Amino acid sequence: MTTKELLIKAKNAKSKLNSVSVEQINSALNSMAEALVKNTDKILEQNAKDIENARGTISDVMIDRLALSEKRIKDMADGVKNVALLPSPIGRVIKRTERDDGLVIEKTSVALGVVAIIYESRPNVTSDAAALAVKSGNVCVLRCGKEAHKSAQAIVNALQNGLENAGLSRDFVLLVEDTTRESANELMTADGYVDLLIPRGGKGLITACVNNATVPCIQTGTGICHIYVDESADIDMALNIVENAKTSRPSVCNAEEVLVVNEKIAREFLPKLKEKLVDKRSENPVELRLDDRAQKIIDGVTAKADDFDTEFLDYILAVKIVDSVEEAIEHINTHSTGHSEAIITEDSVSADKFTRGIDSSAVYVNASTRFTDGGEFGLGCEMGISTQKLHARGPMGLEELNTYKYIIKGTGQVR
Amino acid sequence: MTTKELLIKAKNAKSKLNSVSVEQINSALNSMAEALVKNTDKILEQNAKDIENARGTISDVMIDRLALSEKRIKDMADGVKNVALLPSPIGRVIKRTERDDGLVIEKTSVALGVVAIIYESRPNVTSDAAALAVKSGNVCVLRCGKEAHKSAQAIVNALQNGLENAGLSRDFVLLVEDTTRESANELMTADGYVDLLIPRGGKGLITACVNNATVPCIQTGTGICHIYVDESADIDMALNIVENAKTSRPSVCNAEEVLVVNEKIAREFLPKLKEKLVDKRSENPVELRLDDRAQKIIDGVTAKADDFDTEFLDYILAVKIVDSVEEAIEHINTHSTGHSEAIITEDSVSADKFTRGIDSSAVYVNASTRFTDGGEFGLGCEMGISTQKLHARGPMGLEELNTYKYIIKGTGQVR
Repeated sequence: MTTKELLIKAKNAKSKLNSVSVEQINSALNSMAEALVKNTDKILEQNAKDIENARGTISDVMIDRLALSEKRIKDMADGVKNVALLPSPIGRVIKRTERDDGLVIEKTSVALGVVAIIYESRPNVTSDAAALAVKSGNVCVLRCGKEAHKSAQAIVNALQNGLENAGLSRDFVLLVEDTTRESANELMTADGYVDLLIPRGGKGLITACVNNATVPCIQTGTGICHIYVDESADIDMALNIVENAKTSRPSVCNAEEVLVVNEKIAREFLPKLKEKLVDKRSENPVELRLDDRAQKIIDGVTAKADDFDTEFLDYILAVKIVDSVEEAIEHINTHSTGHSEAIITEDSVSADKFTRGIDSSAVYVNASTRFTDGGEFGLGCEMGISTQKLHARGPMGLEELNTYKYIIKGTGQVR
Repeated sequence: MTTKELLIKAKNAKSKLNSVSVEQINSALNSMAEALVKNTDKILEQNAKDIENARGTISDVMIDRLALSEKRIKDMADGVKNVALLPSPIGRVIKRTERDDGLVIEKTSVALGVVAIIYESRPNVTSDAAALAVKSGNVCVLRCGKEAHKSAQAIVNALQNGLENAGLSRDFVLLVEDTTRESANELMTADGYVDLLIPRGGKGLITACVNNATVPCIQTGTGICHIYVDESADIDMALNIVENAKTSRPSVCNAEEVLVVNEKIAREFLPKLKEKLVDKRSENPVELRLDDRAQKIIDGVTAKADDFDTEFLDYILAVKIVDSVEEAIEHINTHSTGHSEAIITEDSVSADKFTRGIDSSAVYVNASTRFTDGGEFGLGCEMGISTQKLHARGPMGLEELNTYKYIIKGTGQVR
């Protein structure tokens, strides 16, 4: 099937999904979860082929992300079941206005329509994304990287069987067959067919979407997250938070990449930081990349200019000294990707300046940036983390996969 | 000043506006309104020059839209004062979550930053848009058509005086000097400078934005609005609503352009419609453009295919006959611009099918499409009507000129 044919299928499926009840959707999700488990052997078989083909062409870390097991498929199925348990966003009345003339205006949450997701080589994204899209009333079009395509096809087959067993159309979850760049471009410009495109991947993919997409698109992911240690910071708290934000899981987007320190506390703070993150760490000591002023206080690598614009995703931390909270805010707003930033301070004036002044999705006072996550924020799930300002900002849950329409009921009112 | 220089000014002004209180914003708006009235003579002088230059090059209707008077400037000032009275969206906590570990997560409404508006020849849009942008905490960059540029410059000067008199920066409201297409393109691609671009104008401008904009953009305006008369409709109600939606103000985007009639009621309804909209109207009789089936019932012009895809903005109505509510929904979803559509019916099943199935901003049951308007919907104002699904749908008020950020306060929490 060509991508165009698949998009026509998706568009036609929209109206069918429109008339499906919340109960039917939930029972279909449970049926999809069962089908995943039932098809474990088939999925593992295709996954083995993907791994065989990919070996030697991608890194071991990527091979690990690609590899499925019975346990991982069970986890994917449990994930789908958990989505079934979440409250449905569909039909929620966001605001109700009754006018003097009796006209009732209800701003009502409704599905977007067709949600397309471009992702790379993690096969589990297939079932996660499909579950969230269907739960929120959307037809799901998936386009995965070529390394994971056989696995994704086996997973989608299972999910479609689950839909069919529940009496619904297989077309609610569709996988693009073409894995060349061409199909990504087709999705980006599928005006009238794709209601929302979510690119989940590296900087190249996101930039291609920003530049080429004519369909509505949400940028997700990249996080150059900062922590600013204010002059009034509790030093033990600051050490603890920086350690957590940098080292608890450096490969994720909410990990800290840049530390900004007020010069009035730097002489006391930085030597303790070096002790904690470098000298006393037996495994994975952090590489500190220091600006000129920090280098006068502790030893470390000399930071290059682009170290302050890099998502390391590794045990590396760029360190910059500033004179004031204002300078910290300016530096962060210039170099951040708008994901998550934190201030460590005991001064409520500095905290207020920081939370007002920082232009990012999540702004923390005295806590680790690592909390920026749909689950941690109480959304129950996550389709990605938006780093843009329109429609959705920060973790995207089910509500963010809906739009609204005004439903207005009258008895003959005219204007 | 070049457009680039102006955008740098706007970006720098963002952080200043960030620290201004709601009270200061409101008093600045009142001061802006006073300055408009005070500068009436200067504004009229520049407006006279615009009209002199434009005469002969644009239609009389456009000249009328362009022309200001003492009364019109007073109305503009009153508009700005009314915006001051509206509740501020800034800082509203949309959702508050307190976690077991004590972390408090507040999803908080905040300004977008820099809002740019591209508009054509209505000088009053200058003060309307500036007032709404500033009220919602945004720096406002205006780019108006060349016909209105001198008037807009005089209005912006007055508004800037008003800001200055209130102790705020003149840079919160800026007018692009260049009126060539180049400056519109610069705004569309001003990544990192423009947080939201609102094109207010014809189809050409909107299409150019969709295809070229790399900054976040909201499509507004075009309305091919439909009314579907169901077989169970109350005929008098249907006649009344169709008359209102078509003839009360045909030049606006929420006016009806296409009438869809169920064949089971067409023989009774269409002759009465013709009587009301054509035969008995002494002024501005409506031109009915009929499909084949409608032509077998009443006389009228033969509809061409593109009559069902045209925003007439005139006393013209395309008429189509369908067999069912399902066929009506399919026709409307294929040909509508996603603005406003109505069903006239006494049957709750048809009404439910229609409100679920129609994929537009506003879906009416037994009321005129003419109500789609910020004022009528109780928003108090309007920056335009979004016909897209992301971020804002339907009339855009102050809330839609904000985004949100998560502000998270802790006492040292780590993950």
